[in-house]
Amino acid sequence: MKLLHSLIYIISFLFCGIVSAQDNDSVLISTIYREALSNDWAYRTLEDLCKTTPHRLAGSEGVSKAISRMYQKIAPFADTVYLQSVMAKHWSRGKKEEAVVIIGKEKRSIAALALGGSVGTGKAGLKANVVEVHSFAELKQLGKTGIQGKMVFYNFAMDPMDMVPGRQYGKTVFQRFFGAEQAAYYGAVGTIVRSLTNIPDKNPHTGIMRYVDSIPKIPAIAISTLDADELSRDLKLNSSLEFFMRTGCEMLPDVPSYNLIAEIRGNEIPKEVITVGGHIDSWDVGEGAHDDGVGCVHSMEVLRLIHTLKIKPKRTIRMVLFLDEEMFQVGARRYAEWVKERNEKIYAAIESDSGGSLPIGFSCTADSAQYLEFQKLKSLFVPYGINRFRNDGGGVDIDFLADMHVPLLDMNPDPQRYFEYHHSANDIFEKVSFRDLQLGSATITAMIVMLDKHDSFK
Amino acid sequence: MKLLHSLIYIISFLFCGIVSAQDNDSVLISTIYREALSNDWAYRTLEDLCKTTPHRLAGSEGVSKAISRMYQKIAPFADTVYLQSVMAKHWSRGKKEEAVVIIGKEKRSIAALALGGSVGTGKAGLKANVVEVHSFAELKQLGKTGIQGKMVFYNFAMDPMDMVPGRQYGKTVFQRFFGAEQAAYYGAVGTIVRSLTNIPDKNPHTGIMRYVDSIPKIPAIAISTLDADELSRDLKLNSSLEFFMRTGCEMLPDVPSYNLIAEIRGNEIPKEVITVGGHIDSWDVGEGAHDDGVGCVHSMEVLRLIHTLKIKPKRTIRMVLFLDEEMFQVGARRYAEWVKERNEKIYAAIESDSGGSLPIGFSCTADSAQYLEFQKLKSLFVPYGINRFRNDGGGVDIDFLADMHVPLLDMNPDPQRYFEYHHSANDIFEKVSFRDLQLGSATITAMIVMLDKHDSFK
Repeated sequence: MKLLHSLIYIISFLFCGIVSAQDNDSVLISTIYREALSNDWAYRTLEDLCKTTPHRLAGSEGVSKAISRMYQKIAPFADTVYLQSVMAKHWSRGKKEEAVVIIGKEKRSIAALALGGSVGTGKAGLKANVVEVHSFAELKQLGKTGIQGKMVFYNFAMDPMDMVPGRQYGKTVFQRFFGAEQAAYYGAVGTIVRSLTNIPDKNPHTGIMRYVDSIPKIPAIAISTLDADELSRDLKLNSSLEFFMRTGCEMLPDVPSYNLIAEIRGNEIPKEVITVGGHIDSWDVGEGAHDDGVGCVHSMEVLRLIHTLKIKPKRTIRMVLFLDEEMFQVGARRYAEWVKERNEKIYAAIESDSGGSLPIGFSCTADSAQYLEFQKLKSLFVPYGINRFRNDGGGVDIDFLADMHVPLLDMNPDPQRYFEYHHSANDIFEKVSFRDLQLGSATITAMIVMLDKHDSFK
Repeated sequence: MKLLHSLIYIISFLFCGIVSAQDNDSVLISTIYREALSNDWAYRTLEDLCKTTPHRLAGSEGVSKAISRMYQKIAPFADTVYLQSVMAKHWSRGKKEEAVVIIGKEKRSIAALALGGSVGTGKAGLKANVVEVHSFAELKQLGKTGIQGKMVFYNFAMDPMDMVPGRQYGKTVFQRFFGAEQAAYYGAVGTIVRSLTNIPDKNPHTGIMRYVDSIPKIPAIAISTLDADELSRDLKLNSSLEFFMRTGCEMLPDVPSYNLIAEIRGNEIPKEVITVGGHIDSWDVGEGAHDDGVGCVHSMEVLRLIHTLKIKPKRTIRMVLFLDEEMFQVGARRYAEWVKERNEKIYAAIESDSGGSLPIGFSCTADSAQYLEFQKLKSLFVPYGINRFRNDGGGVDIDFLADMHVPLLDMNPDPQRYFEYHHSANDIFEKVSFRDLQLGSATITAMIVMLDKHDSFK
């Protein structure tokens, strides 16, 4: 009986220990959520970023000013703030685009946005017949005979029935990214791309495209999904219609710029670093609110929350606001090089660059033991609606750390609304919800604090 | 062996039958979602409602105009459209409210909204000392000695940590609804109520309150949560501060008005009716977009989708845009009476009045056999993110049908953002997402079509 009693005692003790650790975690997480959900610093910081510096393309005055302002904002909550030099490529949209559908004597002006990186049309603009395609296979089939001297109209739509809209983006982005290069190969003079969004709207959505040096560089624009539908109908009735475009975009000389970095020094293992970041650059339409003002503010809020709540992390928590995610990722490349040069151990890297909707989970790429530890944290987050703990984590900026075997995580917001805003004039501060934003800030902070506390990625 | 073969044949046949029924359902549902997600009629109708008639209090010109416009909009998709007469009570806000915190010589003007139904202060306004309370128990404890001649400041906050914000609304709404009556009982001259929202914002949020005839009617206003926090801090430093309020609200004579009803006649059992509705009235601040423009548009879209897709429902599908949910529910009362008078069988009633965020489920109140049938439909909706099939369905308007044992359903959107908009200037069209709206329209339509097709509530 004595043995049994002892066993019961030991088991109770162990059990209490477990409960108590869980309880401590729960209390700490709840403290983080409470501060985030009842304080408007992050929301007001996002407003400042969006309203003072709405256009933040790499190389622009807007992004320089944003970096300075965010430096001032984050300084009170960090042990160290510094600027990491990079040379930014500088593409400029120039004058507002003109786009006109010409059917006989009828002319219909429509909204257009030059794609990022596109050459301009020259002052005279460009007028040509239009040929509609939905794939590179169709383009090949038409060949030089069908394409030469024409504008290629890429009209492969994102399927609105896909409940994972990002998957549709993945399936359709080829026409925006490679479309001009491929069309030019067959002698096209320009490309018109259906906007990459799953909703029927009147806003063109821009985004990066590329050229290869061996093929002539032709101008590329995006038009809205509703205008694309109408142009397609017009072409069926009148295949000889003409399209006029005038864009003033150009590449300007490189500009010295920066990643903005701020740190809270670790209390036990300061040489190990948790990187958390978003990108400070944005497109030059809208205000870059969801993409990626929110990610910047989430990352800044991680420091504010840890500082304000006097949490003492074991490891150094480093916020990085990356320059130039949207076009050439010069910031992320430089950061990864610098980490390598210093032979620094990045314990984990977390990115927030999927917009500011309600957070519902995390994705994580790590080795299997680490991934298991990540999964163990799930029960702590379920009470806050964070239910999906998945693999395949990462992000455009932190992926440059992948070859150093850094565990990569990204926070997953509900994905339904994202393409209403993405790369368009609709991506403004007013479209971000206070509560969604702050649930995001709290969630990402709590994840960092737990990963650090439990040495999950040892 | 022959028997075995026969059995296998029969089982395969049955299995195919089941699969095929499921498949047919899935195809039908997918057709509904596709049309909803690729058509902007509902979104443009919501824009029209919000921008042309932003203020739609019962009895107002705004709501009359809205009823006329929505009549025209829905007519092309219905077999019958008609107006059901009601007499609307007519409360008017009058001139913009003034509210001033006076601390010695310092005066700080803050935003305020009279509560719906409140009496005005008279032209001279009202100035008094302030006493802060958080419950009726505190009020009782203070008694006449502590309250007489003062303004009572109700400052019991919604807890932002509650992941079911509506539950917090339920816990705190007593101070808005009964607060003036209770304070007046102890001799208060007015009440100031902390806005019922879980976020720290600068917008006052209004809402209905009531008086009883036996107690003097005193004016009641709402102030924002941030102003409430500040006033509370001020009171701690200076309990003798004064508060000035001036409101011009009053009850005007009753006005003839209407519920707007539109029907698609049933093809097999037209005498049985599925009622689907939202409320056409709204508060007179903001644009009544989430509350309840969205619910109106969801309900209208049910008819448009069924009409456009040539779905032939067995039962009559009746859209009801109820008048006056916000204040006295005269529309819902009249509709329920009318159903009783006609001894009509309402097969099911479905309400959408929880805002236009991403739909995540349905609540249903029905007898146990019906509830089981409702649960059986779940698997058809899971692919669209509709995962929560719960009990306790209903809504302010359809609850008047409860005593006729009508199965009551309401669609549940994600609840996190709702109190950012609720009853405030922030409830505008721009805060509604196209995709969320249309996922809602499709979801509610698919539910109605399935309940009808499967005779779930027989």
